[in-house]
Amino acid sequence: MSEAALKYVQDQKETSLNELIEFLKIPSISTLPENKDDILSAANWLMDHLKAIGVENVQLIETAGHPSVYADWLHAEGQPTLLVYGHYDVQPVDPIELWDSAPFEPTLNGEDLVARGSSDDKGQIFAHVKATEALLKADGKLPINIKFLIEGEEEIGSQNLEPALEANKDLLQADVCVISDSNILTPDQPSIVYGLRGIIYTEIEVSGPSLDLHSGRYGGGVHNPLQAMCEIIAKLHDEDGRITIPGFYDKVRTISDAEKAEMTTLNSDETFLAETGAPATWGEEGYSTLERVGARATLEIHGIRGGFVGEGGKTVIPASVLAKVSMRLAPYQPAKEIAQMYKEYVESIAPDTVNVKVNILQTADPVLTERDHPSIKAAEIAYEKSFGKAPVFMLDGGSIPVVEAFQRLFGLPVVLMGFGLPDDRLHSPNEKFHLPNFYNGISCSIQFLDQLAKN
Amino acid sequence: MSEAALKYVQDQKETSLNELIEFLKIPSISTLPENKDDILSAANWLMDHLKAIGVENVQLIETAGHPSVYADWLHAEGQPTLLVYGHYDVQPVDPIELWDSAPFEPTLNGEDLVARGSSDDKGQIFAHVKATEALLKADGKLPINIKFLIEGEEEIGSQNLEPALEANKDLLQADVCVISDSNILTPDQPSIVYGLRGIIYTEIEVSGPSLDLHSGRYGGGVHNPLQAMCEIIAKLHDEDGRITIPGFYDKVRTISDAEKAEMTTLNSDETFLAETGAPATWGEEGYSTLERVGARATLEIHGIRGGFVGEGGKTVIPASVLAKVSMRLAPYQPAKEIAQMYKEYVESIAPDTVNVKVNILQTADPVLTERDHPSIKAAEIAYEKSFGKAPVFMLDGGSIPVVEAFQRLFGLPVVLMGFGLPDDRLHSPNEKFHLPNFYNGISCSIQFLDQLAKN
Repeated sequence: MSEAALKYVQDQKETSLNELIEFLKIPSISTLPENKDDILSAANWLMDHLKAIGVENVQLIETAGHPSVYADWLHAEGQPTLLVYGHYDVQPVDPIELWDSAPFEPTLNGEDLVARGSSDDKGQIFAHVKATEALLKADGKLPINIKFLIEGEEEIGSQNLEPALEANKDLLQADVCVISDSNILTPDQPSIVYGLRGIIYTEIEVSGPSLDLHSGRYGGGVHNPLQAMCEIIAKLHDEDGRITIPGFYDKVRTISDAEKAEMTTLNSDETFLAETGAPATWGEEGYSTLERVGARATLEIHGIRGGFVGEGGKTVIPASVLAKVSMRLAPYQPAKEIAQMYKEYVESIAPDTVNVKVNILQTADPVLTERDHPSIKAAEIAYEKSFGKAPVFMLDGGSIPVVEAFQRLFGLPVVLMGFGLPDDRLHSPNEKFHLPNFYNGISCSIQFLDQLAKN
Repeated sequence: MSEAALKYVQDQKETSLNELIEFLKIPSISTLPENKDDILSAANWLMDHLKAIGVENVQLIETAGHPSVYADWLHAEGQPTLLVYGHYDVQPVDPIELWDSAPFEPTLNGEDLVARGSSDDKGQIFAHVKATEALLKADGKLPINIKFLIEGEEEIGSQNLEPALEANKDLLQADVCVISDSNILTPDQPSIVYGLRGIIYTEIEVSGPSLDLHSGRYGGGVHNPLQAMCEIIAKLHDEDGRITIPGFYDKVRTISDAEKAEMTTLNSDETFLAETGAPATWGEEGYSTLERVGARATLEIHGIRGGFVGEGGKTVIPASVLAKVSMRLAPYQPAKEIAQMYKEYVESIAPDTVNVKVNILQTADPVLTERDHPSIKAAEIAYEKSFGKAPVFMLDGGSIPVVEAFQRLFGLPVVLMGFGLPDDRLHSPNEKFHLPNFYNGISCSIQFLDQLAKN
């Protein structure tokens, strides 16, 4: 184990922080056309930085959208190769008025660094970059081979990544993949995510009259598409919070008693309510809150477009409305199959007084990694050595579609080594990264590389 | 009867049309701050015009918002006084791209004049102005006394009119009121509206978490306010299309068998479906479509604000959402009482996993006029003499809150003498006014004044 590298990390804390701040100042918002140049600036900044720390073969992998940054160091003969995946793009900043400091002027708040992208994902990916630098500067080499793939479209669904992965299969070949784009339980209690939910994102369109109608003249004569939409949506859950689509739960993985017991130690309803500010918890009967958000499938409505939502009153019966509806899938639920079930069910409960159309925008299968895989063992030890405590195992309710792609295309085991925290305000105003996690994350990455090396 | 006045109308058709076009060119949109000057231009244009045709005492009645235009001619001693109410303000033009011609460049399309405000209400009120002119020019006098009250805030709810009515009670005192801001059945089949529905306009606010949440991390743990909203809305009607608020229908006036029979002759479901383009009719079991939209109470959802409704996918659980909900009340339903019932019912069905607040924005009682009142008889004869056919009687599903105010404040019988048509596209792109109705409307107004005169 390279004590020199760990010492380098301690000595370089201030420099590392300043470099991260520089990286965070680039407003690399992937979804907005006006930030296209910033996306390229962030990619270029990253390439320059990777070159400077001594990794090689630094290049852009072009995609149909924003490019990915690739770099490697492959001089550890006979040792395995680690693919480090992350993303340099960030979410938009709206609503800007709710930020306490400018989103692209990184600001220290106690031990937190507040900036858009600080936790998601620039800070987390940068921990691996700094770990690589420390090892190269202190030892002149790495214990294993490493490849970086840092993409620019994660926040817009990584739509163009899979073709790029396929086109660069040889270049990206590795033995294990690590993704740091999630969180641990608390700064003092690291955790390893061994399952992610899949996702199906859909739109339901309900249309009725061929034009917007005046409710005085036509109210009570036609089925208001907005009312019909509410009636359809209300039928998607039963009174026990269960999703009503026939067969929906058939393939859901059963949570073992051991996992159930483990989960009760992870979080309480009190913490959950404090975190969300909700007046009560809610959801599928028979499962704890943590089970529901981590290990069970859920269905959410995100918005309903159509009609009048301005100030005051307008008495319109909208000709058509559109709802955004998504599902999170539990391990073993096949996304495409469930999407079809959902579509057929919604069509079957649609009244014939309106026209209903279901569009499936995105599907991604859930992910489950073997908890006793050697690479997970390596991560476990690395966390314990860097954060001072053995990690707990968690199922995460979120979805990282690329994980499933790495598993499917490369047959790679994926280690989800988060350095974020649950209250990092991802996608929200005042996103922050807890700096002790940043420094411990750098050490964790060094320890992880060390653990992966064959003795 | 003044044949000279009727001849004057025929001789002046082209002039009258050109004047109406001039009036319609002024974009007097009451709801948009940027059109404030246009509102005043329209009021001034109207005042100048009223002066020019020989009515007197022309003045602005100031309100807390846009002013009303007042004018009178009071030299018919011993004769009754007619108050002519209308409005010179118009609706916005959005969506502008759906107009086939510029909304404030009045355009002839066959026998229709296409322009914003053409039917609602500039064209209709102008018919009375032209009738008054014809009588004054042809005969040098009117058969009865007349007062004009033409307001500038009808399209934004006439919120400031009632205080202005009270402040000018003496000035506005009359024996009967006529309002031409509705429609007849067809150009060849005039109709008299003897009932209008009341209205209650409300907002339901559902809030849950204190901030927008990510559905991956929290989905299945909290009651999504948008889902809770849909569940509440779905409970406001039962499966037979009846409103579920306890006691809601208790005071609704029963439709007599004679009225039921009369209604079946007025409109068919085929016409209704052709007019709306809806795939089917819908509504309260046990009533025909025309009964439901005219004589029965209804409840409509106009929009739900909150969450994400842009292109693509965003997996937000909104912290709070707001629905716009209104009711149309049938005769005898007391608006304030029903509003309270509604509020209590919505609060009672709200689950305790979210917070629910109900705001009542507006209430207006329904209106029913006595079909055998002498002023209605006068209107009946006037229609028959001008349109060539005896009018049928109709209940209109819309609401004109000012009618109830005239009845309550002045004890005035109100005659709803519409010159519009059902397909005039009020509030929509390509609003139009059928010109034969304009010319017949002028004659009808002349005949009406004549009928009201005591012999």
